Amino acid sequence: MSTRESELKPMDAEQLRECGHKMVDFIADYYKTIENFPVLSQVEPGYLHKLLPDSAPTHPDSLQHVFDDIQDKILPGITHWQSPNYFAYYPSNSSIAGFMGEMLSAGLSIVGFSWIASPAATELEKIVLDWLGKMLKLPEDFLSVGQGGGVIQGTASEAVLVVLLAARDKFLRKVGKISLGKLVVYASDQTHSAFQKACQIGGIHPENCRLLRTDSSTNYALSPNVLSEAISRDIANGLIPFFLCGTVGTTSSTAVDPLIALGKIAKSCGIWFHVDAAYAGSACICPEYRQYIDGVEEADSFNLNAHKWFLTNFDCSALWIKDRNALIQALSTNPEFLKNKASQANLVVDYKDWQIPLGRRFRSLKLWMVLRLYGLENLQSYIRNHINLAKHFERLVTQDPRFEIVTPRVFSLVCFRLLPASKDEALANKMNHDLLNDVNSTGKAFMSHTVLSGKYVLRLAVGAPLTEERHVNAAWSVLQEKASALLGTL
Amino acid sequence: MSTRESELKPMDAEQLRECGHKMVDFIADYYKTIENFPVLSQVEPGYLHKLLPDSAPTHPDSLQHVFDDIQDKILPGITHWQSPNYFAYYPSNSSIAGFMGEMLSAGLSIVGFSWIASPAATELEKIVLDWLGKMLKLPEDFLSVGQGGGVIQGTASEAVLVVLLAARDKFLRKVGKISLGKLVVYASDQTHSAFQKACQIGGIHPENCRLLRTDSSTNYALSPNVLSEAISRDIANGLIPFFLCGTVGTTSSTAVDPLIALGKIAKSCGIWFHVDAAYAGSACICPEYRQYIDGVEEADSFNLNAHKWFLTNFDCSALWIKDRNALIQALSTNPEFLKNKASQANLVVDYKDWQIPLGRRFRSLKLWMVLRLYGLENLQSYIRNHINLAKHFERLVTQDPRFEIVTPRVFSLVCFRLLPASKDEALANKMNHDLLNDVNSTGKAFMSHTVLSGKYVLRLAVGAPLTEERHVNAAWSVLQEKASALLGTL
Repeated sequence: MSTRESELKPMDAEQLRECGHKMVDFIADYYKTIENFPVLSQVEPGYLHKLLPDSAPTHPDSLQHVFDDIQDKILPGITHWQSPNYFAYYPSNSSIAGFMGEMLSAGLSIVGFSWIASPAATELEKIVLDWLGKMLKLPEDFLSVGQGGGVIQGTASEAVLVVLLAARDKFLRKVGKISLGKLVVYASDQTHSAFQKACQIGGIHPENCRLLRTDSSTNYALSPNVLSEAISRDIANGLIPFFLCGTVGTTSSTAVDPLIALGKIAKSCGIWFHVDAAYAGSACICPEYRQYIDGVEEADSFNLNAHKWFLTNFDCSALWIKDRNALIQALSTNPEFLKNKASQANLVVDYKDWQIPLGRRFRSLKLWMVLRLYGLENLQSYIRNHINLAKHFERLVTQDPRFEIVTPRVFSLVCFRLLPASKDEALANKMNHDLLNDVNSTGKAFMSHTVLSGKYVLRLAVGAPLTEERHVNAAWSVLQEKASALLGTL
Repeated sequence: MSTRESELKPMDAEQLRECGHKMVDFIADYYKTIENFPVLSQVEPGYLHKLLPDSAPTHPDSLQHVFDDIQDKILPGITHWQSPNYFAYYPSNSSIAGFMGEMLSAGLSIVGFSWIASPAATELEKIVLDWLGKMLKLPEDFLSVGQGGGVIQGTASEAVLVVLLAARDKFLRKVGKISLGKLVVYASDQTHSAFQKACQIGGIHPENCRLLRTDSSTNYALSPNVLSEAISRDIANGLIPFFLCGTVGTTSSTAVDPLIALGKIAKSCGIWFHVDAAYAGSACICPEYRQYIDGVEEADSFNLNAHKWFLTNFDCSALWIKDRNALIQALSTNPEFLKNKASQANLVVDYKDWQIPLGRRFRSLKLWMVLRLYGLENLQSYIRNHINLAKHFERLVTQDPRFEIVTPRVFSLVCFRLLPASKDEALANKMNHDLLNDVNSTGKAFMSHTVLSGKYVLRLAVGAPLTEERHVNAAWSVLQEKASALLGTL
């Protein structure tokens, strides 16, 4: 049966086979030629509206027509996160194993809200989160053997939201829900914006969100003294401290909050301590980087995005919690239409009660396949290779006196900038802003920026699976060339 | 290069091709033999723990070994949602087009939080949501031309949560956040449990959630009079009504709330009116079913799960909203590291501000491919065919005097039960509970249950893409056979 000759059925094994093979070839060809695309899409806002009709077709289109449109209309609007020349934000890894896991998940197409809805989905998730927890040497109370356990969330945003809700409701059960307006959260001003969003969603008053100031003296890490003082002040004012978010590897500059000291404070005040290691957590499977999460023993919850730098296709955000009941008490529902023997008898985990949505995809498959098909040693090498490439880039930058490294490199992110000829910081910011635009407009590399202590800083994050030294060198050449052009015109 | 001979790289076009083809064949073979599996997995809690090692491997496993484990260890723990003998809960459709869309999304592996992160992802989503909105004849103010627009959420749970937050914050901006404890929501007691969960997350006091009673006199639809009275009472008590959730096709019994009447009340009281048509909305692309969402004109937001009964692989929950700014005001963040020209100039939509998470997959691809590759007419036929099969099942049930239809069938769900010999309702409930267990234990069909006015009711929902009349007949035979066995032993 050929899809050229007959109409596509909703589901037919042989048509699926034929179409699936075509799509595999399309995707393999994409990776074969991925370096030919401008990394950052160069289209204008609204470009696609001009290319597509105003309404869906009444009759089916041919598969070939759709493939042509993907090639001609969709690909130009893609920013190629998997390109080896992608250095922006943080990486979002795809891999062969992760891709196969996604395919299988889409192929089986189950919805694993409860254990009974597909026991393998729940049980595999529990197992692989224990595996990954052990690779990270997380304390045993984060594993499923005791009162804790792991769960796959979609994103770190959802991870911090669900633990914030767990902590909020745990506290409100003690102090009464009328005290919501007195609850106070703590984090550094470098904490991901998802944290503030979670607070907003959970009804924490914005004036009770302490985003404590950091500066270059701590490399933008949260100071335990500053935290202690803030907590004392709030208690003195009759407020109720209840949540601390520490970060290992901030999004701006990979700052590492001092978990051991923060954990002691959190413990002594009885507040929930969440550790966001969305990006840098992956590095902690290497013994030499494990130190950065020392202190996680005192945390109540810990998060790592396997979809960032761990070869597991987006989305796969691993969250571990010590007191799973706190999560379940905040998020469980038990409608009649979902009741079943295994759940009612409390014999099983129902992950619907550990997350915001009810439905959930079979995401543990891809993480399982990544762990199985690469194995611990290769995953460690993968991380080390990227860190070495970042070190290499750092050396290149330091060798060019026109540039400076702004904060010490810790993992695979380098924060740097073009130095102003004068001490004019406004000019420096404009110059680096322009440099970034000029580099990204070439399509040869894509990097992003941040602002640290008022300085506009360029960020080059190594972490795409295909990135090799030659790509880092090429990105540096583009930077040098555009810097020369800019400096020549100043 | 063969993956048998060489180690799998993180990403390599030719290895990806080879592995991808193998996975396509695995999945096509799965669909070829899908009827051979017991629909409901028959494993015991903890089965997988006994089959898998305690930790991840140090060295890579072979691809063949992983495939063997999928076959031998994972598939027995799968409840086969795509089986033609699956009639439980509501369907969660997979299709060839949806599967290809998932593959492409995993293959490109972009993270489309902002327009710039891949313009095609944002723009295609806007376009296909407009397409689908037009197919449903939604009023134009739900489309992207004006102040409204559509967005893909993961689930209906997230859809109702984000609009609840939008409404909450809109009201709190007027009345002050100190009044959170006075905000009141309204819905029927048949409303999906996700609504209560959303209220809990958003800090709405549980005693301010009016889940208004329904009964068989309205076929479990919300009575406008009951709603009006509740609102008046709350206003008289100094509370602040702010949100109404109506449902078209409840999860228990496909009850349809009277949108026109409810919308008038909501409008006159100035409260946010959300319509949850997660399941039944898909039917409204057929002119003869469009009447069920008449009144949506007065709604502020409308939701349909394309992943339920619209051939789009989970997850793809379409949400339309009239006032997109309300959503953005509740959910936007603007961290430095994400700032870019297009966003700052307000030239584009950044869907991160329309949802809970920051990151998001390229889900519009699969919906686009479903609409393109099937077209409106085939999609209408698809829906009609399922409804006809449900009618057929309904006839079978009515022809057997041992059974009764409990609520009138509206779409493709039939609610029925085995009648008690006496009027003993407790016995009837036990009997139907046992009947369901007996049927599901055969593995030949999987259906689920609900409770309506104290009656334990069986639910048979037609909607899996492969279901034909013979599967419905077979399910009915199993039901009759197990009923005979049960009645014989009573």
